[in-house]
Amino acid sequence: MPLAVALGDPSGIGPEIVAKAWDARNEIALPPFFAVGNQTSLERVWGGPIRLIGTPSEAIETFRDALPLIQVDDPGAIVPGEPNLPGARCALDSLEIAVGLTRSGASSALVTGPVSKSQLYAIGFSHPGQTEFIAERCGIAYENTAMMLAGPTLRTVPVTLHMPLIEAATKLTTDLIISRARTVWRGLQRDFGIEAPRLAVAGFNPHAGEGGALGMEEIEIIAPAIEALRAEGIDAVGPLPADSMFHERARADYDAAICMYHDQALIPLKAIHFDEGVNMTLGLPIVRTAPDHGTAFGIAGAGIARPDAMIAAIRMAAECAERRAAREA
Amino acid sequence: MPLAVALGDPSGIGPEIVAKAWDARNEIALPPFFAVGNQTSLERVWGGPIRLIGTPSEAIETFRDALPLIQVDDPGAIVPGEPNLPGARCALDSLEIAVGLTRSGASSALVTGPVSKSQLYAIGFSHPGQTEFIAERCGIAYENTAMMLAGPTLRTVPVTLHMPLIEAATKLTTDLIISRARTVWRGLQRDFGIEAPRLAVAGFNPHAGEGGALGMEEIEIIAPAIEALRAEGIDAVGPLPADSMFHERARADYDAAICMYHDQALIPLKAIHFDEGVNMTLGLPIVRTAPDHGTAFGIAGAGIARPDAMIAAIRMAAECAERRAAREA
Repeated sequence: MPLAVALGDPSGIGPEIVAKAWDARNEIALPPFFAVGNQTSLERVWGGPIRLIGTPSEAIETFRDALPLIQVDDPGAIVPGEPNLPGARCALDSLEIAVGLTRSGASSALVTGPVSKSQLYAIGFSHPGQTEFIAERCGIAYENTAMMLAGPTLRTVPVTLHMPLIEAATKLTTDLIISRARTVWRGLQRDFGIEAPRLAVAGFNPHAGEGGALGMEEIEIIAPAIEALRAEGIDAVGPLPADSMFHERARADYDAAICMYHDQALIPLKAIHFDEGVNMTLGLPIVRTAPDHGTAFGIAGAGIARPDAMIAAIRMAAECAERRAAREA
Repeated sequence: MPLAVALGDPSGIGPEIVAKAWDARNEIALPPFFAVGNQTSLERVWGGPIRLIGTPSEAIETFRDALPLIQVDDPGAIVPGEPNLPGARCALDSLEIAVGLTRSGASSALVTGPVSKSQLYAIGFSHPGQTEFIAERCGIAYENTAMMLAGPTLRTVPVTLHMPLIEAATKLTTDLIISRARTVWRGLQRDFGIEAPRLAVAGFNPHAGEGGALGMEEIEIIAPAIEALRAEGIDAVGPLPADSMFHERARADYDAAICMYHDQALIPLKAIHFDEGVNMTLGLPIVRTAPDHGTAFGIAGAGIARPDAMIAAIRMAAECAERRAAREA
């Protein structure tokens, strides 16, 4: 079965990097996928062959010779780098169709291109981001999912996400850490084939609080979560000083780092794997990945967008879908 | 002139890594230095030649054939990995002598080995750490210094340091950011030979606050600091999203990253340069560096401690002292 790749905002770099991924399909042995989006957004930035398809199954044969596309209605004027509201509508329709096809089993996994949140909000989109929308369409509480950032040598998961840093301190609870860690643990088994995943749990404060001298979150919130996880048989260690967790030798000791706030997870991942970071949503009934970057309107249309992260997202989605299918067969 | 290297806690890895640095002196062309500490602490972990010297100037000739040592009184029983109070006293005496010799001009720069803060506190040491002690001995207000973490491809400076993360939010002020950035700017000129240093200033919140949606520190505190710095002619940019500042291409755009809290500075530095990170104190009348790691009591005496960071600290101290001397000649 092919993968579904939503192109994201038609004025962002999504169409370009998906087209470049297709260009590289033979050289790097990419699994077959089809795009969901508007043809014009591809043609504005790419001269390669496109073939409109009606159903995902046509993608397998088509993929060799042309980029298979499930067409989303013309969003009007598309100018790379200049987002507009019809473009946001097109991005949302693409996402909706791609989610539905994957949910129905017609595609093996979902890969989503970058969207503009502010444009989506302007057309009435009421979810904070694509992930919350996808979770809802899958009938899953967003709170039970986990965002994993994954590169070749590091996987990180932020427990709290898009909120002011001081608010992260108030939102961090033992239950939330346990819930996220469980989701990660099952995800590593189900999608990554790691039978006994090792989780490294970061502290919140400098030096992981240094026994309470530099903060109490480790003692009051994080350590009890680790204890509860271990009692369930989940191999979790910590709370570890966050600054000593991410160098090469340390990374070899765990399969995922459970981080307490957004930048604690994103800083090391992007410092080490900026061009190949994949954003994967764990805890869904479908496999969903995305490149870990935005629409990059500033360079859209210039032909210089790097497809590395999109390629990594496509490859990871395919591998995880295959492992999950084999495991659950 | 030789460098002064305080051995740090005699039961930690300090003596071993200084001895190993001396072993490597010819192969890697290390500048001459002398150790300040106790002979027994070296002999417990190293079989090489030691020569006691009375004054720093003797170190230059001695250095070729033996590790020059300014002896600090026998601290009693020294067992690698087992710190005790006489050992802490020895570490403090070593630091005091090494600072004094460097302050007097008898050594060109100061390198400090790792100490145990809890052991120092137990003997009545009333400074939070070595840096505060050194600043006081140099007659400089600690608040006017800046801690720079430096590796081959990245320099970071935390504006706030050892405090609970939520406290960092309350301690962060426009004045403090300006003061730290000025110290860094002068330090890069004076010690690193960078005539027009480029400073990248991080945001505090995820996505640098996303225009206020994810926190107000950027708008209320950080942006005004950058504006004031630019008005002084200091090339400062930001506030930048911290998670996109530290990858290879981004690092090429600045000479130092001004970070808002401890882990924001330490996570990327240690993720990328764990074995070669140097802690340098800017804003002092002397050049002072230290390896960016602790006493590592757990591996002391096992012969496996890596001298890389100590070697990097010695080399950086020598280079900076030379540049500063040339500039101020």
